[in-house]
Amino acid sequence: MASLLRLRTATLTGLLVLLTTPLLSQAPPALRDRISAWRQQHEGAILRELAELLSLPNVASDSVAIRANAVHLLGMLERRSIVTRLLETPGSPPAVYGELRTPGATRTVMFYAHYDGQPVDSSRWTTPPWRPVLRSRALFEGGVEIPLPGPGERIDPEARLYARSASDDKSPIVALLAALDAMRDLGISPSVNLKVFLEGEEEAGSPHLRAMLERRRELLAADVWLFADGPVHQSRRPQVVYGVRGVIGLGLTVYGPNRPLHSGHYGNFAPNPNARLVHLLSSMRDAEGHITIAGFLDDVPPITAADRRAFASIPDIDGTLRAEFGLARSEANNAPLAERLMLPALNIDGLEGGGVGAGHANVIQPVSHAAIDIRLVPGQQVARVRELVERHIRGQGYTIVTEEPDSAMRAQHDRLIRVTWSGGYPATRTPLDHPMARAVASTATATLGTPVIEVPLLGGSLPLFHFEEVLGAPLIVLPMVNHDNNQHGADENLRIANLWEGIVLYAGMLGSFEV
Amino acid sequence: MASLLRLRTATLTGLLVLLTTPLLSQAPPALRDRISAWRQQHEGAILRELAELLSLPNVASDSVAIRANAVHLLGMLERRSIVTRLLETPGSPPAVYGELRTPGATRTVMFYAHYDGQPVDSSRWTTPPWRPVLRSRALFEGGVEIPLPGPGERIDPEARLYARSASDDKSPIVALLAALDAMRDLGISPSVNLKVFLEGEEEAGSPHLRAMLERRRELLAADVWLFADGPVHQSRRPQVVYGVRGVIGLGLTVYGPNRPLHSGHYGNFAPNPNARLVHLLSSMRDAEGHITIAGFLDDVPPITAADRRAFASIPDIDGTLRAEFGLARSEANNAPLAERLMLPALNIDGLEGGGVGAGHANVIQPVSHAAIDIRLVPGQQVARVRELVERHIRGQGYTIVTEEPDSAMRAQHDRLIRVTWSGGYPATRTPLDHPMARAVASTATATLGTPVIEVPLLGGSLPLFHFEEVLGAPLIVLPMVNHDNNQHGADENLRIANLWEGIVLYAGMLGSFEV
Repeated sequence: MASLLRLRTATLTGLLVLLTTPLLSQAPPALRDRISAWRQQHEGAILRELAELLSLPNVASDSVAIRANAVHLLGMLERRSIVTRLLETPGSPPAVYGELRTPGATRTVMFYAHYDGQPVDSSRWTTPPWRPVLRSRALFEGGVEIPLPGPGERIDPEARLYARSASDDKSPIVALLAALDAMRDLGISPSVNLKVFLEGEEEAGSPHLRAMLERRRELLAADVWLFADGPVHQSRRPQVVYGVRGVIGLGLTVYGPNRPLHSGHYGNFAPNPNARLVHLLSSMRDAEGHITIAGFLDDVPPITAADRRAFASIPDIDGTLRAEFGLARSEANNAPLAERLMLPALNIDGLEGGGVGAGHANVIQPVSHAAIDIRLVPGQQVARVRELVERHIRGQGYTIVTEEPDSAMRAQHDRLIRVTWSGGYPATRTPLDHPMARAVASTATATLGTPVIEVPLLGGSLPLFHFEEVLGAPLIVLPMVNHDNNQHGADENLRIANLWEGIVLYAGMLGSFEV
Repeated sequence: MASLLRLRTATLTGLLVLLTTPLLSQAPPALRDRISAWRQQHEGAILRELAELLSLPNVASDSVAIRANAVHLLGMLERRSIVTRLLETPGSPPAVYGELRTPGATRTVMFYAHYDGQPVDSSRWTTPPWRPVLRSRALFEGGVEIPLPGPGERIDPEARLYARSASDDKSPIVALLAALDAMRDLGISPSVNLKVFLEGEEEAGSPHLRAMLERRRELLAADVWLFADGPVHQSRRPQVVYGVRGVIGLGLTVYGPNRPLHSGHYGNFAPNPNARLVHLLSSMRDAEGHITIAGFLDDVPPITAADRRAFASIPDIDGTLRAEFGLARSEANNAPLAERLMLPALNIDGLEGGGVGAGHANVIQPVSHAAIDIRLVPGQQVARVRELVERHIRGQGYTIVTEEPDSAMRAQHDRLIRVTWSGGYPATRTPLDHPMARAVASTATATLGTPVIEVPLLGGSLPLFHFEEVLGAPLIVLPMVNHDNNQHGADENLRIANLWEGIVLYAGMLGSFEV
């Protein structure tokens, strides 16, 4: 493998001269066809390598299992002559780091994925989460178990592979390595230096990531970070995502009497914490999602003309989504999803304040709880948002505590609220006109032969701010997996067609990336 | 026993002449002293009879157990020469009916109690619910198990008897029968005819009561119904209660997407049912209990001067209650409890819309539920209240359904709500100036030697409206048990002093009731 690499880098040196003349570079359509033809000869081998990786349990909290994954990944990378090392900070799971230098290359592309997965509730899985099962179709389409293809055999691209992390986020790693294999076999040299950073605690909230980045600032320097995570567009078309919303978790507990009271004898006398909570929550946002906390929207940037051009690249699937979700109408009179995601959101995720239905008792509850997540857009700072929310709560007459108040505290303060913040981090966004943004979009479009969708800001959140704040490189999310992958849930799966497309896409980023 | 009764009725005939001259009637203070002296000689026997009754399981749904209670009660009544019969309607548990005629008496007093009890969660009881246990004090005061007193032995009146229905509602039955025993032994004849109606399904919501009353209208005719149910005042002073609030149960379910959605990807797009619910609930009442549904308060009668005079008889324990409940303030700036209970209440008893705390997930929920009870005051009609609430909900843009909507229904209606009404019945109230109201209050005051508290309207609800609507007799609640009895919960108990007082009180109603 090492000698092959040398051969390839030699070829690359020659190509680099050509790369200065874009028209003569490895033409993307040809690349796509050649990679696809190669893949058709290797479907079984690619799927077997992926299945082997997916058979390793990988819940972030299981440090022994996580390390076994890391060691396994080292082997996979080294088989492609990638120079590897494990990165660790005290108490952290290892991150798998790799480097594949291209002599003469002036750009370095960092490829990010994570190899840990969400915890599983095995009882809810059709087949065990770490026994990868190939099915002829998706389960919801009646897919049945089929064997992995043998050498030279092909399978229907609508088949799906079921396993924890099949989509989130092991398959991009295999796609990248398959792309390298194909390029090696086809004599296509990378146009860039490749760095690989495979995180082992993303699903656990990346508690050691910041320290790791700060410790390895120079090692991790790159011209662009490509995050191979998350799904392609719901239309199944490829997308490039330039930013993600931030998020803060917010728990609220309001208090009534110190024990449940008969609602007949004490209704209208003992304060009802459910009533207090619904009024407080109602004061924070309206039913259409508009946040009514003073100052909250001050730091929200307006939607620009460039944003609107990007929106135009996004297929209008709003009506399809409404039908899929069984909705007569979406918020704010069917305002476009892409625009809605440019705004902060205050989501009331949970309410808990006494039984309902068969559990209904006529009592005034001692406490009532709400669980909220606030999605932040670029420009909003976590500390400022917390300050505004707390100021608003105080403005409603509440005294804020951060720990469970004792009975004396409850008896002293009429409107007492426990506020619990968790997991706050800001949004990150690479400007649409950043040279790296343009290069990734044009390379992806040219490679795939179809205009990629450009998403200014993903609704979901990823803690990319660590990378932005520590490393300062532009961050771009370049997903490959299907959106209907049951990510985080039972029966997580990968649609095989997405794996094939991912191999082409990442080969394009390595073989024909141009700035 | 039958011969004793004859002897007693003979004595009564003579006394009736005297009764026309109030000053010469059996003087209440003497009655109190004589009954108490008798009781001191019979504490063990009274408690054993009560414990025997309490050892019979009596959950309303257990028809075999309920019938065993009824048969046991027949025996208890018949031992006092009460003419008994079981009243039944199709599917109903039996009500135990009894009659003790007093020759020449012009008034008939109906004594109501119920012998069924709330379901139990035995795991939460200190001792089993149907093994009556006498304790030296309340459990919360460190009471330890003590034996029932032997013949002639006395016990501390602060002792408590623990068992299901010790307070709610078997002990008033034993108090009444002990009063009859005492009067018999002391040669005190009743001044009234006594009827007894012991219900067997009160804790199950009295589903057959109406039919039973309608079928036995003449049999159940009386000048006044005395309801021996509920507790005395929290100050431990005796009270006469002239009315109860009505109640309706209301379940609300509002809808979002047909499955939980990622709050990042779809927050601000998919309607959040928790947000909708908090706005709807906020529109129905404010945080201080004021109901903001249009027209809701139109039928609420103003508080009268007579009401205020009655309030003045009620000890001001509001501050004590606030301290007991750990409240810095009660609703509406510490407005008096008695006044607050004259108003309808909209109690939000339960909220359920996704996990909080450790169960918090960043999702938009498919549904959000609220459980509400509405307490009604005299003048409000159930049908009208339902109409006003539904009109209000429609006014908030909702389409109301009464069954779980299917997906097509959900997809057709933006704001869909499932409204479930349960258990609605109106308040009942006997006017403070009704002759029977005055007679019960003056008899109780004279008998006990202390002014009874007069409560125009109890905050809690009892389905007394059936009695009012079918029988038309004035209804007065004359409780005897301690307020801190853990009614409906684990470790239900009776404070023995309350039993002793109950015997005197009911003896007064039988022996010196004057209109």
